[in-house]
Amino acid sequence: MLKKLAMSVAMICAAATSARADEGQWQPYQLPQLKSELKKIGIAIPAEKLADLSKHPMSAIVSLGGCSASFVSNAGLVVTNHHCAYGAIQRNSSPEHNYIENGFLAKTRAEELPGGPNTLVYVTDKVENVTARVLKGVTPAMTGKQRHDAVEKAIKALIAECESSGSVGAYRCSVPAFHRGLEYYRIRQMMIRDVRLVYAPADMIGNFGGDIDNYEWPRQGGDYSFLRAYVGKDGRPADPSPDNVPYQSKDFLVVSAAGLKNGDPVLLAGYPGRTSRYKLPSEVRAARDVTFPQRVAEIQADLDVIAASTKGKPADEVRYASVAKSLNNVMKKAQGLSDGFARKDIAAIKDAQDAEFRAWYARQPGKSPQLLAELDTVIAADIALSDEEFGHGVAFTSDLLKSAATLVRLASEGAKPDAEREVGYQQRDQNMIRARLNRLEQSYVAGVDQARFAAALQRYAKLPKSLHVQGLDALLPAADAVPALYANTRLGDTATRVGWMGKDAAALKASGDAFLQLALKLDGVTQSLKDRRAELDGNLERVIPQYMAAVIAWKKSQGKPVYPDANSTLRVTYGTVAPYSPADGITKGPFTTVQGIVQKHTGKDPFNAPQKLLDAIKAKRYGQFKDPVLGTVPVDFLTSADTTGGNSGSAVMNRNGELIGLNFDSTYESITKDWYFDPEITRAIHMDIRYMLWIMTEVDHADNLLQEMTIKYPTKAAK
Amino acid sequence: MLKKLAMSVAMICAAATSARADEGQWQPYQLPQLKSELKKIGIAIPAEKLADLSKHPMSAIVSLGGCSASFVSNAGLVVTNHHCAYGAIQRNSSPEHNYIENGFLAKTRAEELPGGPNTLVYVTDKVENVTARVLKGVTPAMTGKQRHDAVEKAIKALIAECESSGSVGAYRCSVPAFHRGLEYYRIRQMMIRDVRLVYAPADMIGNFGGDIDNYEWPRQGGDYSFLRAYVGKDGRPADPSPDNVPYQSKDFLVVSAAGLKNGDPVLLAGYPGRTSRYKLPSEVRAARDVTFPQRVAEIQADLDVIAASTKGKPADEVRYASVAKSLNNVMKKAQGLSDGFARKDIAAIKDAQDAEFRAWYARQPGKSPQLLAELDTVIAADIALSDEEFGHGVAFTSDLLKSAATLVRLASEGAKPDAEREVGYQQRDQNMIRARLNRLEQSYVAGVDQARFAAALQRYAKLPKSLHVQGLDALLPAADAVPALYANTRLGDTATRVGWMGKDAAALKASGDAFLQLALKLDGVTQSLKDRRAELDGNLERVIPQYMAAVIAWKKSQGKPVYPDANSTLRVTYGTVAPYSPADGITKGPFTTVQGIVQKHTGKDPFNAPQKLLDAIKAKRYGQFKDPVLGTVPVDFLTSADTTGGNSGSAVMNRNGELIGLNFDSTYESITKDWYFDPEITRAIHMDIRYMLWIMTEVDHADNLLQEMTIKYPTKAAK
Repeated sequence: MLKKLAMSVAMICAAATSARADEGQWQPYQLPQLKSELKKIGIAIPAEKLADLSKHPMSAIVSLGGCSASFVSNAGLVVTNHHCAYGAIQRNSSPEHNYIENGFLAKTRAEELPGGPNTLVYVTDKVENVTARVLKGVTPAMTGKQRHDAVEKAIKALIAECESSGSVGAYRCSVPAFHRGLEYYRIRQMMIRDVRLVYAPADMIGNFGGDIDNYEWPRQGGDYSFLRAYVGKDGRPADPSPDNVPYQSKDFLVVSAAGLKNGDPVLLAGYPGRTSRYKLPSEVRAARDVTFPQRVAEIQADLDVIAASTKGKPADEVRYASVAKSLNNVMKKAQGLSDGFARKDIAAIKDAQDAEFRAWYARQPGKSPQLLAELDTVIAADIALSDEEFGHGVAFTSDLLKSAATLVRLASEGAKPDAEREVGYQQRDQNMIRARLNRLEQSYVAGVDQARFAAALQRYAKLPKSLHVQGLDALLPAADAVPALYANTRLGDTATRVGWMGKDAAALKASGDAFLQLALKLDGVTQSLKDRRAELDGNLERVIPQYMAAVIAWKKSQGKPVYPDANSTLRVTYGTVAPYSPADGITKGPFTTVQGIVQKHTGKDPFNAPQKLLDAIKAKRYGQFKDPVLGTVPVDFLTSADTTGGNSGSAVMNRNGELIGLNFDSTYESITKDWYFDPEITRAIHMDIRYMLWIMTEVDHADNLLQEMTIKYPTKAAK
Repeated sequence: MLKKLAMSVAMICAAATSARADEGQWQPYQLPQLKSELKKIGIAIPAEKLADLSKHPMSAIVSLGGCSASFVSNAGLVVTNHHCAYGAIQRNSSPEHNYIENGFLAKTRAEELPGGPNTLVYVTDKVENVTARVLKGVTPAMTGKQRHDAVEKAIKALIAECESSGSVGAYRCSVPAFHRGLEYYRIRQMMIRDVRLVYAPADMIGNFGGDIDNYEWPRQGGDYSFLRAYVGKDGRPADPSPDNVPYQSKDFLVVSAAGLKNGDPVLLAGYPGRTSRYKLPSEVRAARDVTFPQRVAEIQADLDVIAASTKGKPADEVRYASVAKSLNNVMKKAQGLSDGFARKDIAAIKDAQDAEFRAWYARQPGKSPQLLAELDTVIAADIALSDEEFGHGVAFTSDLLKSAATLVRLASEGAKPDAEREVGYQQRDQNMIRARLNRLEQSYVAGVDQARFAAALQRYAKLPKSLHVQGLDALLPAADAVPALYANTRLGDTATRVGWMGKDAAALKASGDAFLQLALKLDGVTQSLKDRRAELDGNLERVIPQYMAAVIAWKKSQGKPVYPDANSTLRVTYGTVAPYSPADGITKGPFTTVQGIVQKHTGKDPFNAPQKLLDAIKAKRYGQFKDPVLGTVPVDFLTSADTTGGNSGSAVMNRNGELIGLNFDSTYESITKDWYFDPEITRAIHMDIRYMLWIMTEVDHADNLLQEMTIKYPTKAAK
C-alpha cells in the first residue's frame, strides 16, 4: 500500500539535511581555493587534480561550440545532449530514414554518419594567462576606441600566433576577457572537424515534452546522443574523409550506473555561455523595466507575424519552425527573467550588496577617488547604447537585409589587410559566413520575410525615443515601400546570395539589387553604432576591471573567492541533488521516473513516447537500473549546481568523477540565475545516466556502445 | 542558507516512513473492531470509549445539518467552518456592518448575533437499532412499491414516536438506512434552534482563495467560525429569545496548540453526507460515461445562460452569485469525478473486486441462486431510471416551476392525513417549505429565470432518448412559449408565492397563474416518476441488503470489517498527516504556512489578505504558534482521513482526542474518493488549529474566546 507515496517521500528524505545549493562557475585553476567546500559536500577527487586540464577527469571534457560534451571511450566516443547533436541527426534524416523520429544507431563504425560542417569537437589543450601581452600597448591617455582597438589588435595577433602553431585548421584559439578585461587567457583548442553521428534515441525520447516542457519541471527527457571524433591517420584534425580514424582520446569518463540519491554531491564541467552576476543595481533595473519587457513584446509580435504569414501553408510553416522554436526559446527565457524579477526584488538585493561594497571601498586607503563615479557613468552609457542596439535589431528584422549587410561589410573589410579587418570578417571567418548565407535557404520564404520586415519597421517607428538608433530613422524605408524591395532583389536566391561573397564595394554599388542598395545606405549608421560601441567598450574595459579588482579584494577580505562571469570557457561547478519548493505547500523533485512518461504520454507530439519504451515500462523490465529508493528507473534529476546556456551536454559527475548524468536544462524559476543565483530555488535539470543506460539496454539494444564504454554497475552481477 | 527548502523537506521527512492512508467512515459502535489499527497508528483513546456517544470526545461532536461541528466550552461554544456559518454571517451583514468582509467578534455574550432560522445545532443523544421494527410488516410477496411504502410507513411512525418524546420541537429524529436497508437506526437529535454568531474572521481569512482554490492544494484557508447554542432556562431547546441561556454542553473538546507533524495520527468525527463505495462496475461505467459528463455539460450550459442574462446588471449578478457558486461547486466536483475516472480505471478495479466476490459467493453453501441476477437487474433499472430523473431535472430548470410544483404537491398531500403524506410534505416539513419559498426572494430575477427555463427546454429536447422522462415531452411548453408563462404568473412575488401554501388543489386549479397551471399539468408525470422510483427503491431495498450481507460475510472471511456508505450520520475516520504525489516529480503538502498567504496575495479577491494579517506575518509575530520544523505558523495540512461533503467543520483530533484542526475540503485528485478510496492520492484538507489560535491571538485579539476555551499550549509558558 502507498508504494508510490512512500517512494516520493523517501526519495526526498534520503539525505534531506544535506540539501544545499552552491553558486559559482569556477575556472578550474580556482578549485584549490574551494578545497574545503568540495570536501564538505563529499567530493573525493583532490581539488588540485580537478584544476589540471591535462589530467582526468578534466581532460575528458570537450566543447562542441555552444554545447558541452565529454569523451566516454578511448576511441573518440563523445556523449552530449540530443538537442546538441540535433543538427547532425537532422542532416542525415530523410523521409526514408527518419532518424529524428525513429532514432539512429550505428551498429558498426562503418555505419556512423557524417555530422556535417557544423558538428565540431573542440578539445581544450592549452590555457595561458596573456593579460600582460594583451594590455602591453594600452596607455591611460587612450580614448575608449583607441583602447578597444589596441586590445583587439593584440588579441588578433595572439590568436594568429596560436592558430599557426599546428597543422592548417588544427587549432581554434581565442583570447576571452575575464571580469571584462581584468584578465585575458589564451585558450588553444584542437578543432576536430570530422565528427560522426553514432547514436541518437528517438526524438520522443530525446526531446520528450518538447517546447511545452522546455524550462519546466517535472521533466522526463532522455536528452542524450553519441558522436565520434575522427582525425587523420597522423592523429591530427583533418577534413572529413573515409580514411580518417577515430581520435584516440587520451582520457575519458567512466560511467557509473550505481546511481545517486537526494543530497549526493555532484561535479559539473562544461562551457557555460554568458552570465551577468556582477551587474549594478541600475543595470538590473534597466533589464527588468526595459530590456526584458521590450524583448518579450518584440519577439511575440514577430512570432505573430510569422504565424499569420505561414498559416495554411504547411511548407512555409516547416521552413520557419526552427526560427519560431528559437524565438520562442529566447522569449521564454526573457519572460522567465521578467517573472523572476517580479517574484524577487533582485534590484533591492543588489542595492544592499552595492551599498555594502561602496561603504567598504570608501574605507580603503588605496581607493581611487573617481572610480565609482566613472563606473556609474560608463554603465549609464552602456544602458543607453544597449537600448539603441535593441532598436537596431528591430529595424533589421529581415533575413535579406541581414544578409545584404553582411555582404556589404565583407566587401568593405575585404579591402583591408586581414589583420586590420573587423572581428568576424577575417579570412578565418569566411567559411562560417558562407555556411550562414547558404543555410538561410532552409528557413527563408520571401513573403514571410517581407511581412516580418514591414511589421518590424512599423514597430520600430513606435519604439520609445531612447531605443531609436542615431541617424537611422531617416534612412529606413517606409513599411509600404517594402514590397518593392522584395520585388527588386535576387538575394533570396541562394547561389546569387553566396555569389556576392568576395565582390568588392564598387561591384555592390553598381548592382541594381534593392537590398544591397539599402544595406549600403544603412552601413554608415551601423558602423557608427559599432564605433560608439567600441569607444564605450574601451571605456568599460578600462573601468570595470578596476571595479572588479576592488570587488575581488572586498570578497577576499571576507575570505571568499570570486568567479568570473561565464564567457564560454571551461568551468567547473558543484552542488548537491536537491528538490525545491516553488510555492508554499509544494515540493518539486529531485527525481522523475519512467512512470512520469506513462502519465504524460498522450500519443501526440511532444508527449508521444515510442511504443517500445512504453512496453518496457509496462513490463517493468527495469533490470539493474531500478533505483532502490524509487523502486523504478529514474529519468531526470535536479541539483543545485550553477549552470547556464552552453552547459547543455555537460558531464555531471559523482564524488569520484564518474559520469552519472548529463546537464540539459534549468527550471523556469531558475532563469533569473544568470543575474542572481538564488540558492532557494535555483536548480539545474540533468538526465540520470541510468535512464540512458536503461534505454540503451532494454529499448534500443545499443550493445556495441555499452561494450565500448567503461560502465560500473551497481552490483557485481555480470553485465 | 536554504532555510525554506530545508523546511519544506524537513516537514515532509519528519515521519515519512509512517505515512499511510486509511479508508473507512466508521459507525462509532464499529470502532472496537478496529482496535489494533487505531493502536498501530498511535491513537491513545481506547476504541470502546470512542464508540460511546455519551462519553468524551464523541459527546462533544455535533451536527449543524449539512455541516459538522464541536463544542469547545461548557457554555455551548461551537467551532465549525467559516463556510458553514456563512449564512449566519451574511444574515447579520450590512453595508454599515460588513461582517463578511471585516469579520465579526462579540466581545461579550450580549453582543452575540442571532444566527437565523437556518442556523441549528443538532446534538445526537440516542441511537437505536430499529431494523426489526422497520421491517416488521415487510413480506417477500410485496411489490417494490408496497415494500417501499411499508418501510416508509414504519419509519414515519418511529419518527413520530421519537419526536413527540420531548418538548415540542426539541427533537429531530430520523431513521436512516445503512447498507441500503440491511440495518436501520433511529437517531434522536436535540435540535437547538437559538444559535448565535460569536466570531468569524474576515472573509479573506476564512475564505482566502475562494472559488479558485476550492478543491485545490496548496491551500491557505482559515476556514473557522464560532457559534453558541442557546436554550431555554429549563435547559431545553427553545425558540430564539433574549431570555435564553447558553447551553450547558456536558462535554467539549480541549484545544491543543502543541501542533502535529508529518506522519502523526488523527481522528476525525463528523457527519459525512453520501458516498458510493459499494457500487457495481456497471454503475461506475454509467457514472463515468453518462452521468458525470451529462451533468458537467448541463451545468456549464446553465451557468452560461445565467452569465449571459445577468451580464452588465450588477444587481442581478449579485442575486445569482450564490446560485452560480453552488452550481460551480457541483460542476467542479462532477468534473473532478470525470477526471479521476479518466486517470484511474476504477471500473476495472471494481471488475476485479466484483469477480473475486462472485467467485467466493458461488462457493458458499447457503448462497441464494438468484441473488446476483436480481441484483444486476435492479441495478440496471436504477441506472435507467436515474437517467430519466436527470432529464426531469433539466426540464425543471426554473425556480418558478419548482415553486409551483411544490405548491401543487403541498395542496395534494395536504388533503391526506398527516401520516399518509409524502415524505417532505408532512406537517413537520411546513416550516422548511415556507423558508424555502421565502428564500427564493434573494436569488430570483424573472428575466434570468425565464432565460434559464427557455434554454433548458431546448437542451432537454436534445438529450439522448434514454434521458427523456416517460410522458413528459408532450406536456412541456415550447421554448418560445416561455415568455408568455412569465407574463402570466405572479409566483415571482414572494408574498403571493408563500400565500399559496395551505390552499387546496381546487383553488390552484381555479387560479389563472400560468406556472400553477403548468405544474398541475406536469404533476402526473412527476408523480409517476416518483412511483416508479418507489417501486424500484423497494426492490433495491430488498435485493441490496442481501447483497451487502454477502459482501460483509466475504470481507469477514478475510478478517475485514465493513463500514456502510455515508448517510449523514455520525461517523469516525482516522488517518495520518501525509503528503501526496499528484504527478511524477512533484510532492504536495502536508503543510502550508502563512508565507503562502503572502505569496498568493494579489490585493484582489479572492487573494486579498487583510492588511493586519499581512503585517503580523511580515513582523514574524508568530508567538508560540511557530512550528519548530516549519519555522513559521502553519495554516492548513493534509491527512489521509476518509471524508466527504458533510464533514465540513469536523473536528480533527490528535491521539488524545484534543482538537488540532478543522476539516474543510479535499484535494481535487481526491474527488473520486466518493466512489473509490485511492490511498495513494486521497487527502483531506484541514485547517491547523494553531493558525486559528494565532489569528485569534495576534490578528483579531479574540481574548474572551481564548479564555473561554481550554487550550493546551506547547510550552508551560503562561498564556
